[in-house]
Amino acid sequence: MSEHLITAPDGRVPGQATPAIVVGTPSQPGWSVGLDVGGTKVLGVIVDPAGAVRHEVRATTVRGVDGVVGGGVAAVHELAALAGVGVDDLAGIGIGLPGVVDPHDGTVEHAVNLGIVDRVALGGLVAERLGAHLPVQVENDLNMAALGAAHLADEAVTDLAFLALGTGVAAGLLLDGRLRRGATGAAGEIGHLPLVVGGRACKCGQAGCIEQYASGTAIDAAWPGPHTRPAPLELFDAAAGGDAHAIEVRDQFAWAVSSAVRILVLTCDVQHVVIGGGVSGVGQPLLDAVRAALSAEAQASPFLASMGLATRVSLAPLGAPVGAVGAALAGRSAREGAV
Amino acid sequence: MSEHLITAPDGRVPGQATPAIVVGTPSQPGWSVGLDVGGTKVLGVIVDPAGAVRHEVRATTVRGVDGVVGGGVAAVHELAALAGVGVDDLAGIGIGLPGVVDPHDGTVEHAVNLGIVDRVALGGLVAERLGAHLPVQVENDLNMAALGAAHLADEAVTDLAFLALGTGVAAGLLLDGRLRRGATGAAGEIGHLPLVVGGRACKCGQAGCIEQYASGTAIDAAWPGPHTRPAPLELFDAAAGGDAHAIEVRDQFAWAVSSAVRILVLTCDVQHVVIGGGVSGVGQPLLDAVRAALSAEAQASPFLASMGLATRVSLAPLGAPVGAVGAALAGRSAREGAV
Repeated sequence: MSEHLITAPDGRVPGQATPAIVVGTPSQPGWSVGLDVGGTKVLGVIVDPAGAVRHEVRATTVRGVDGVVGGGVAAVHELAALAGVGVDDLAGIGIGLPGVVDPHDGTVEHAVNLGIVDRVALGGLVAERLGAHLPVQVENDLNMAALGAAHLADEAVTDLAFLALGTGVAAGLLLDGRLRRGATGAAGEIGHLPLVVGGRACKCGQAGCIEQYASGTAIDAAWPGPHTRPAPLELFDAAAGGDAHAIEVRDQFAWAVSSAVRILVLTCDVQHVVIGGGVSGVGQPLLDAVRAALSAEAQASPFLASMGLATRVSLAPLGAPVGAVGAALAGRSAREGAV
Repeated sequence: MSEHLITAPDGRVPGQATPAIVVGTPSQPGWSVGLDVGGTKVLGVIVDPAGAVRHEVRATTVRGVDGVVGGGVAAVHELAALAGVGVDDLAGIGIGLPGVVDPHDGTVEHAVNLGIVDRVALGGLVAERLGAHLPVQVENDLNMAALGAAHLADEAVTDLAFLALGTGVAAGLLLDGRLRRGATGAAGEIGHLPLVVGGRACKCGQAGCIEQYASGTAIDAAWPGPHTRPAPLELFDAAAGGDAHAIEVRDQFAWAVSSAVRILVLTCDVQHVVIGGGVSGVGQPLLDAVRAALSAEAQASPFLASMGLATRVSLAPLGAPVGAVGAALAGRSAREGAV
């Protein structure tokens, strides 16, 4: 990597407040554990020195600081035992969770779905409970998913947005091989960009937010049950079966997702947009619908056509613990003292 | 800067195709020249080793490859002579221009306003004509402006979007101290994100694009002459004078600009948004109107309020050759052989 450095001629050396995570440069080899702590379940993986996922565990999330720390520690022990590796021999641990994370000191706050409100030094607590001299890297879960999606891609990828379509809509950004967290850790909060002026009321206080049209919650509302399977699967099946209303709901959803893709590409020019989150369980029919929406828009606009949006979009590998894998990679990259 | 490096456990070392430009790390000290080549004029500055602008020149743009190269070479000679520095003694030259630039090899294409269509190795041609062994760094003009705005800020700034409101609307991004060019050099093209579903037709083929509401062109259309001064100045003065229609046009414009700011912050979480481009000549009344729009939106949304959009926005220093200054900084950072 050739870097052109700019002189700080006036003596300012602003530096960087948070540790940069860089893909593609070897650092700490070894086994590492990654945890993806969500509102309902904890997914954990242990990754071998060659980068392959060797074991996977899942557990129900126990809310609150003690529950999250205890659940994390138990998963680490379980994964290390499964792999026959000592906890002390791990190169590091990574934890991704939905909340405001300071990756510099491993603190978390406003992780409402985990029952964590006030700031707590989660990384430190986990390391302490493990009694091991291990670096623990804590990140927002979508950042971890972006790292995991890059790692699990078929080709070498260093530039992508992980677009999560779940309860809400948000993205994790890996730009030029580096996580882009943002000045306040809020990068990728595109779910609260208005899509429709004066549109559906959003719990954030605005109207017409993308989240009101492109989330799993939006599908639940537009395609109410009773269902035997998740609403997105029922909707896409009904649309494939020719149900006119289902087609309309599906196409509006796909249009909203295509708008999120357009925002990510026209703002950040990410090379890839990987769609994940609960709705991505729909699989190929979801990708087809989003690509169809993007292609239709490109037909009307030579400019959009030149951006090649439809070819930049893909699905996260179905059923793969993308966030946990990313966490394991981030964990092995952390150095003691610098976290 | 502490960096946590991620192992590429499968042997992939994707690296980075283009040279990274990093703010805040001393590299080549010395004098450097920066050129901002626009559709109508060329602005040039020479910056001393301490980072201060010592001389400034401006010339009319001569279109076409020969015109742009010749004009650039003449400006370099003039600035070096004004400063009493030999061209051979410069640490480097930077050139910013509106077009698709490959900063890796200094080539430019689709710089329609400069009469350059096919790909041409502009950096190499300028270096050759100067007959000096000088690194010449070529970049998109808004990227150079982002570097310049960071340098000219009152405080240490390494994270900002330079939002240009001119003929069109687009941004240059400096993220975590690095230029974000994007996978295809198209980062910051937010002017072609739709703001209003089914809104005003845009020359890009889409409808309702931000550019149709937040550009100088949009003000020209909404506040037609005859004027003795630029339309934005006339509009804001009329609005300040209580003209009801002017107030309406101004507030719609400010709303559109506030939407552009919201996109930049919610997507990239840039610490600062610096408004530049022709419309920024309006000065404080423009900033007041945009901040008022952002504050009104924050009042309705605790989420937006928490993002502090109004406090992130500022104006580029009035009359300062921001793009040329950024070009001079980029120029001194370029190393021969690596460009």
